[in-house]
Amino acid sequence: MRINEHFAKLPGSYLFPEIGRRVRAYAAAHPDARVIRLGIGDVTEPLAPAIVEAMHAAVDEMGTREGFHGYGPEQGYDFLVEAIRANDYAARGIDIAADEIFVSDGSKCDSGNVQEMFAAAARVAVTDPVYPVYVDSNVMAGRTPAAGPDGRYPGFVYLVGDESNGFQPAPPPDSVGPVDVVYLCSPNNPTGTVATRAQLEAWVAWARAHDTVILFDAAYESYISDPSLPRSIYEIPGARSCAIELRSFSKRAGFTGVRCAFMVVPKDVTGVDPSGERVPLHKLWARRHTTKFNGASYVVQRGAAAAYSPAGLAQTNAQIAFYMENAKLLHAGLTASGFTVFGGVHAPYLWLRTPGGATSWDFFDRLLGECQVVGTPGAGFGPAGEGYFRLSAFNSRANIEEALARIQRQFGPGRA
Amino acid sequence: MRINEHFAKLPGSYLFPEIGRRVRAYAAAHPDARVIRLGIGDVTEPLAPAIVEAMHAAVDEMGTREGFHGYGPEQGYDFLVEAIRANDYAARGIDIAADEIFVSDGSKCDSGNVQEMFAAAARVAVTDPVYPVYVDSNVMAGRTPAAGPDGRYPGFVYLVGDESNGFQPAPPPDSVGPVDVVYLCSPNNPTGTVATRAQLEAWVAWARAHDTVILFDAAYESYISDPSLPRSIYEIPGARSCAIELRSFSKRAGFTGVRCAFMVVPKDVTGVDPSGERVPLHKLWARRHTTKFNGASYVVQRGAAAAYSPAGLAQTNAQIAFYMENAKLLHAGLTASGFTVFGGVHAPYLWLRTPGGATSWDFFDRLLGECQVVGTPGAGFGPAGEGYFRLSAFNSRANIEEALARIQRQFGPGRA
Repeated sequence: MRINEHFAKLPGSYLFPEIGRRVRAYAAAHPDARVIRLGIGDVTEPLAPAIVEAMHAAVDEMGTREGFHGYGPEQGYDFLVEAIRANDYAARGIDIAADEIFVSDGSKCDSGNVQEMFAAAARVAVTDPVYPVYVDSNVMAGRTPAAGPDGRYPGFVYLVGDESNGFQPAPPPDSVGPVDVVYLCSPNNPTGTVATRAQLEAWVAWARAHDTVILFDAAYESYISDPSLPRSIYEIPGARSCAIELRSFSKRAGFTGVRCAFMVVPKDVTGVDPSGERVPLHKLWARRHTTKFNGASYVVQRGAAAAYSPAGLAQTNAQIAFYMENAKLLHAGLTASGFTVFGGVHAPYLWLRTPGGATSWDFFDRLLGECQVVGTPGAGFGPAGEGYFRLSAFNSRANIEEALARIQRQFGPGRA
Repeated sequence: MRINEHFAKLPGSYLFPEIGRRVRAYAAAHPDARVIRLGIGDVTEPLAPAIVEAMHAAVDEMGTREGFHGYGPEQGYDFLVEAIRANDYAARGIDIAADEIFVSDGSKCDSGNVQEMFAAAARVAVTDPVYPVYVDSNVMAGRTPAAGPDGRYPGFVYLVGDESNGFQPAPPPDSVGPVDVVYLCSPNNPTGTVATRAQLEAWVAWARAHDTVILFDAAYESYISDPSLPRSIYEIPGARSCAIELRSFSKRAGFTGVRCAFMVVPKDVTGVDPSGERVPLHKLWARRHTTKFNGASYVVQRGAAAAYSPAGLAQTNAQIAFYMENAKLLHAGLTASGFTVFGGVHAPYLWLRTPGGATSWDFFDRLLGECQVVGTPGAGFGPAGEGYFRLSAFNSRANIEEALARIQRQFGPGRA
């Protein structure tokens, strides 16, 4: 059998399994170490009571002939789709139809699968640093030659996020040539920074002018507290014709182990086929979603819908506030220890400049070895992430305080 | 944005949504009709008590800080992987390692995604009739020109299953040229027939001799009651080096709405890259699975593991026996009504010759209109399915009996 040769262009393993491997090796060599994980960005608070209750009720239904649910609609049950439409869109004055919402088992799947709608020759733009799935899924699909010595794939357009632009790159100049598709993420993973309304307006104007589709990953939108900041790309007029939005229950309702997300594909977004005819992406995604996916678990969808009940909203908002208080403590503590810190205000991620110009993997090993704290090396998110480091605010208060105390001891004034 | 032009080579909608559309239209026009659905092949019995109990316990865990599970291993939790390895393989004398098992959210996803490991130029063989996902996912990936007037894609090799071979085609002659990959399904969806040991031995011998990979879909293996029939391709010596196996909890434990499956990729199965170097497919699939998937729901995996407990096995085996008694009743009743019936002995599907040489969609409309019974037109599974019709045994006993009575009235001796 002839294999897909493009897999060989990827680094040996996906970023987070590699971190897991290093942490397991450290833990095995230091069985008494109490490692605090601020790496992978996984939530730690228990599921909200309203969600637990809804999932119990759904499990009970599944145990009865009358309440049993077999195959559901691939796009998601009406009770969930309608809750999404009403709460996330209509309530914010955004016109999204129920059948433009596609419920899935997770945003990692959606962000990996969405590229199946693009032509093989489509030119993809990503930010640097970037969530690795956007890049890796396009590498696997053969949209680029192998990476160069700088770690960059020559087939992609890279948009550097750095301190000069607050890690929010602007649309590229026309000199880069045509771009079919651009992946944006705000609040940003990994940098924890957030795009302003003016920045998103510039992106939408550019996308419409250049016939480019924006894939807008809003997995962290619920961490935005400033009402002047957009939580959806569709708050920007014109976005309905150029943007697909990805959302997840993982960070908003503690669903990293429960698995539910959705993608919004407005019927106004079109692409061109080789004859130049315009085709709604909605039609392509509906075909993909119904052909290769069989719906998210009924029990899970009932849990996700409960996140929109008054009790569910209050409980999950309290969790988000709790994590954001963690982020505030980390920001203050790290700054006091002499670190230069970005993000962490409207996102559960903090983005640090590594001390003394250390490489980000060296700093990873040092933080693990000296403080037993796990973070994520910026270089894992792309070459422009080198020299930076991501810490997540997802943990218990006690662990956040303990991690800060250890970091303070090793890196605080007079130590580093 | 330039789109993936290969989507346009697909029929407008995936088979089952099209059936759903026709049934909804009929129901809307005939609000009093009591439609009996034997079409999509969806289970109807409630989840087994042992599974309900395990899912409740898992939901409770998720509501506590100590028991909360966030991101799990993408390949599945050890408790489930080990249950699969021990029960489905080791207990049957099959040597499959835990890390060769990849737990997923469903076999439809697995069978659609597996082709990402193949080269763009890989030549794919499918049976005809066939489960549509095998074909559609390879069409979307661009492995064939558009279908010809006979509905067949010229890029694929078709292996016809018909009455002369008992709907179990043999390996193709060398004159068809090299084949990279062949999809087999036994017990077969849609025909309900099952491959014998000798037939699978012939496939494994052929695959090894031709360096072809077999994708063996065993989603219905638990419906085999004859111990001389293989339930796994790995019961055939040599299969570890040429076969990938797909399994699902959907039909075995009533998980169509719960969502859990797995794929076995032995480390001995290799493909070749363009330089001729052999690459283990296990390495490719591990990369794909960890990059584009984030694990099946913890609650769901706990439910799946409970299907292997003594109580879970007894309860799910009783469900399977119940459905197979339905199949037996359908087989006898349809035969008595003058139909020629295949399958339905080691599979929950019956495959009928349409009466009077009707096309399969005409028979679909007639059965819906005259009997208010929904089945699946054979033509939906490929050109060789024309003139045949699939009925599923998944329903209550009362509905099976009622459907048979209606069919007997319309088609029984002296009527059709």
